[in-house]
Amino acid sequence: MGLVVQKYGGSSVADAEGIKRVAKRIVEAKKNGKQVVVVVSAMGDTTDELIDLAGEVSPVASGREFDMLLTAGERISMALLAMAIKSLGHEAQSFTGSQAGLITDSAHNKARIIDVTPGRIQSSVDEGNIAIVAGFQGVSQDSKDITTLGRGGSDTTAVALAAALDAEVCEIYTDVDGVFTADPRVVKKAKKIDWISFEDMLELASSGSKVLLHRCVEYARRYNIPIHVRSSFSGLKGTWVSSERPDAGQSGQGEEPMEQAIISGVAHDTSEAKITVVGVPDKPGEAAAIFRAIADSEVNIDMVVQNVSAASTGLTDISFTLPKTEGRKAINALEKTRSSIGFDSLRYDDQIAKISLVGAGMKTNPGVTATFFEALSNAGVNIELISTSEIRISVVTRQDDVNDAVRAVHSAFGLDSDSDEAVVYGGTGR
Amino acid sequence: MGLVVQKYGGSSVADAEGIKRVAKRIVEAKKNGKQVVVVVSAMGDTTDELIDLAGEVSPVASGREFDMLLTAGERISMALLAMAIKSLGHEAQSFTGSQAGLITDSAHNKARIIDVTPGRIQSSVDEGNIAIVAGFQGVSQDSKDITTLGRGGSDTTAVALAAALDAEVCEIYTDVDGVFTADPRVVKKAKKIDWISFEDMLELASSGSKVLLHRCVEYARRYNIPIHVRSSFSGLKGTWVSSERPDAGQSGQGEEPMEQAIISGVAHDTSEAKITVVGVPDKPGEAAAIFRAIADSEVNIDMVVQNVSAASTGLTDISFTLPKTEGRKAINALEKTRSSIGFDSLRYDDQIAKISLVGAGMKTNPGVTATFFEALSNAGVNIELISTSEIRISVVTRQDDVNDAVRAVHSAFGLDSDSDEAVVYGGTGR
Repeated sequence: MGLVVQKYGGSSVADAEGIKRVAKRIVEAKKNGKQVVVVVSAMGDTTDELIDLAGEVSPVASGREFDMLLTAGERISMALLAMAIKSLGHEAQSFTGSQAGLITDSAHNKARIIDVTPGRIQSSVDEGNIAIVAGFQGVSQDSKDITTLGRGGSDTTAVALAAALDAEVCEIYTDVDGVFTADPRVVKKAKKIDWISFEDMLELASSGSKVLLHRCVEYARRYNIPIHVRSSFSGLKGTWVSSERPDAGQSGQGEEPMEQAIISGVAHDTSEAKITVVGVPDKPGEAAAIFRAIADSEVNIDMVVQNVSAASTGLTDISFTLPKTEGRKAINALEKTRSSIGFDSLRYDDQIAKISLVGAGMKTNPGVTATFFEALSNAGVNIELISTSEIRISVVTRQDDVNDAVRAVHSAFGLDSDSDEAVVYGGTGR
Repeated sequence: MGLVVQKYGGSSVADAEGIKRVAKRIVEAKKNGKQVVVVVSAMGDTTDELIDLAGEVSPVASGREFDMLLTAGERISMALLAMAIKSLGHEAQSFTGSQAGLITDSAHNKARIIDVTPGRIQSSVDEGNIAIVAGFQGVSQDSKDITTLGRGGSDTTAVALAAALDAEVCEIYTDVDGVFTADPRVVKKAKKIDWISFEDMLELASSGSKVLLHRCVEYARRYNIPIHVRSSFSGLKGTWVSSERPDAGQSGQGEEPMEQAIISGVAHDTSEAKITVVGVPDKPGEAAAIFRAIADSEVNIDMVVQNVSAASTGLTDISFTLPKTEGRKAINALEKTRSSIGFDSLRYDDQIAKISLVGAGMKTNPGVTATFFEALSNAGVNIELISTSEIRISVVTRQDDVNDAVRAVHSAFGLDSDSDEAVVYGGTGR
């Protein structure tokens, strides 16, 4: 008998009606002959309300106690969901993260999973129960304290359990129909993606797509757990994220030609800022000193570009992007090293956007880059920085241009929903 | 260094302000050089709100999941309380019932404590922390499931921890100033009791006093843990419940003469009904058959009276009281046995009240009973049933008479707050 893990987010269980709707869907899966393990988030705004309460009693919420507080939210939703399932005539048992065997390190508020020992969950489903597990939480290996996994933690709980229980699939239920070729709020003609590889999904996630977080996809790729992202409000099929296209190796219908670039989608991100270090002496070790200073202040940076040095001055500029929330910290760290490194000035710019095109085989198909830049040029969008990987091209533009840029690129690659087929770049670029 | 356990009820931590006020009081105890363990209930109406939510998703809330749901309430209040204490500059850690070592049986919603293993709590306070423990909850020994202790469970948690940690005292903070000589809503002149023995407190609790529940007092008596019931809103001393009067054996001042009746207070209870079995053949085994039928239906009865048999008929009447909530069940059970037992009819009366006078040395001081009955007679209150124990006299009256009866008895025994001294019945009645 196959086992499926289903994860439902807070918007799917926002109230009693939502819980009852989700319970029906879970029971359907059970009736289809599956063993069912469900991971559930806190109801609607519960977590935010608890955070507000914490703010009222204490200006600085401590790690350990804050985790103890927040995990109450899932305890409520999971118990209610188990009750709703029981009232439909099926057996259900709810389990805290600790009871479900989610063992983490001791980094409160952002704990990492270090082991999953799902013995109680396996026993529960073997006895015929539907097992409901609290998302987002675990227990620390050393101190046995309650921990939370941080942002996107419930998705990660679901994938981790799916891996430990050798599930057929991890279904992530949310309030959208799946992963789209671009953000549907920006691109009206964005299409739902039926299937996407782990690698492309990772690039989309780190380029601004918010449906799945990078961390959860990475976990799924490592343990090769297929993810099915779909809506809890409709019965539609969503987006499959897996190592191989589900129908690969069958009739051949619908398969793409080998060694051609397959464009998955266009992502954008307006949460970053750009820092330019102006007038850096162009000699060995200068760039290293700059990024050592940034790293020591624990700031994560994204794209990095060093201009070609001007021969007349022997000086160069170094630009990089980073989350806006870390801008102040980075500037402070750099100012402290100005005299030792010897640059002229710092420029801080938070009116930028990053647009990324993601797809397999891109680097070996030069036409992709050309088409990408032509599309932006035709739309009158200026490119400030460029960065590429095997399966992604990203550019930085003015933030005001982001919607035009995304639409232009989406259209140029034949992703619009009135196109018959996505453009396929043939040939062997190597 | 002495250790105190403090328990705060839901009304004391109803909102952020309440939590901050309680935090200050806890820190005061810590500053006075005590190790402090705090047991806390869910905030205000949280538990009722969770019960309502359960009702919305499921008509029948199941034991295991219902406990999982309800225990979220304490998780919230204890984490917030720990945060509030930290923001006052003191270290605090919160613990679930399971983490605190409250081991119970598997009777969900009304679990009994079978062991307390407070190793983590002891370590936490030894390291200088204030330990905050979730009241009302534990973990079942067999299945490791979350359980709740039922009504008054948080008080029991506090006393059980106090016993296991060998605490000096268990302080029960509530929204009244202590235990009174009668319900202050009925008797304006009721006085706060400074000290009361475990035995008298047990009788008061089972006679209708609601400040402390029978179960918690019984646990405290068994392990000889002094309880101090007091208000979390005032700084006043409350009522000490212990085996010996705190100042006994000292200067002798304020001590009561030996072997004299010491009246603790007057309790009343309007939650019971009376059933009379009319026309029972007065021969061996008839009463036993009646009470076997009641016991088999799992109804708890309280007072029992069998009238003297009328010589002419050889028939007698048997009356007993029981909780109104169990009246229907008892009547049904008796009706089924009517032919085999052979009684005439059943009378059901839920317009009764029970008034009880509680105090040590009562049975050996015949004057007490006389004064009690005279007081009721003078107030025009008719007595329907009488029951006595070593330290209690209870009578059943019409419910309409209850307030007059309580006031008359309270006054007759010199308990009114304008009396100089409670009446002391001297002599050696034996």
